[in-house]
Amino acid sequence: VTQDELTQTLRDFTERRDWSQFHTAKNLAMALSAEAGELLEIFQWLTPEQADAVMNDEQTAGHVRDEVADIYAYLLLICDRLEISLNDALREKMRHNEERYPPDQYFGSAKKAP
Amino acid sequence: VTQDELTQTLRDFTERRDWSQFHTAKNLAMALSAEAGELLEIFQWLTPEQADAVMNDEQTAGHVRDEVADIYAYLLLICDRLEISLNDALREKMRHNEERYPPDQYFGSAKKAP
Amino acid sequence: VTQDELTQTLRDFTERRDWSQFHTAKNLAMALSAEAGELLEIFQWLTPEQADAVMNDEQTAGHVRDEVADIYAYLLLICDRLEISLNDALREKMRHNEERYPPDQYFGSAKKAP
Amino acid sequence: VTQDELTQTLRDFTERRDWSQFHTAKNLAMALSAEAGELLEIFQWLTPEQADAVMNDEQTAGHVRDEVADIYAYLLLICDRLEISLNDALREKMRHNEERYPPDQYFGSAKKAP
Repeated sequence: VTQDELTQTLRDFTERRDWSQFHTAKNLAMALSAEAGELLEIFQWLTPEQADAVMNDEQTAGHVRDEVADIYAYLLLICDRLEISLNDALREKMRHNEERYPPDQYFGSAKKAP
Repeated sequence: VTQDELTQTLRDFTERRDWSQFHTAKNLAMALSAEAGELLEIFQWLTPEQADAVMNDEQTAGHVRDEVADIYAYLLLICDRLEISLNDALREKMRHNEERYPPDQYFGSAKKAP
Repeated sequence: VTQDELTQTLRDFTERRDWSQFHTAKNLAMALSAEAGELLEIFQWLTPEQADAVMNDEQTAGHVRDEVADIYAYLLLICDRLEISLNDALREKMRHNEERYPPDQYFGSAKKAP
Repeated sequence: VTQDELTQTLRDFTERRDWSQFHTAKNLAMALSAEAGELLEIFQWLTPEQADAVMNDEQTAGHVRDEVADIYAYLLLICDRLEISLNDALREKMRHNEERYPPDQYFGSAKKAP
């Protein structure tokens, strides 16, 4: 399935419910952030090791899949609303990051580039 | 470009910098949420109309593309870490939402399903 | 009630449940952000006018009070963990912002100071 | 300094810059969440131990104090806008949580109450 097909599915879903009126860029950014918060909630009290093993529990695994799906849905809807190609935006960003973070200079370092 | 190819690009980028040590599921969820916050910040003082017109200003447009790219990058990295297919997760969620939100019952309504 | 008394109440509550083990600064920052996301969720599909009128509905009002309380609780717990005086931090920040945003220069403007 | 005095300081600051027009409940909730994201960013790549030691570095300590101050400022402004007493909301929530999480039943457990 391509990104365009997923976007089309989301667009159809939205239009059949007349929900475009709610889907301003501003509101979608809020919804995306709220969903990112729900993903955080799953991990907040877990040790790093427990967090990495979260898919071993079937119920939590389903919860995680739900949240990443929600985040992706709102991300695609924002991009559709603002006429952004998400794939292109990421590729452009990766090219930029390749230059911004030279591997030898940032090897094993979590410092942010200036 | 497929989602798998983008994931592979991110994985290579990460490994060449020895950053996998930082990319626990817990940390990636935090980074995703922090980036979602940066997207919010762009829109926070704008009216809904101004927010929808945000791509007309070249500098802000670049900023928005940057943030959606960052969110997508962390989303793909979380899914890679937890061995989740993001595309499948979204399609599964859409099937579920089709049943959960019958169009006639939720037409024009922003209520959350129980 | 003073801020110190509220912090003491939270500390007692936490200790009686042996929850300090979960309350690292990192985890508390995640919990705070997750609660901020729940506050967002209340407002996300509302028009600015509907959002400002949110306390007129008793059930939503209770929900909003719950979320601001949760955010404040985690904020106080982070400050307690890191030995920060929240009141002092805010007063210091206000002094700084007075200089950073001269009223005549930023009157009616949502621009961020450089 | 009391909470009411801090709120009054924030209100004066806002009015002298004619910023109330931006401070709808909806926009303030977004700003709060964006600031919570900036706090997350400080901690995102740190181990739990490094995160707890964050105040030992003077520059990072100042950054943390800045962010908790920003979060508190927006929290007070939302409460002012919606006419909520933040202190009362927290005390009410603590009373509720005392009943919801009986110490013997939730001792050492990070489970969420149903």
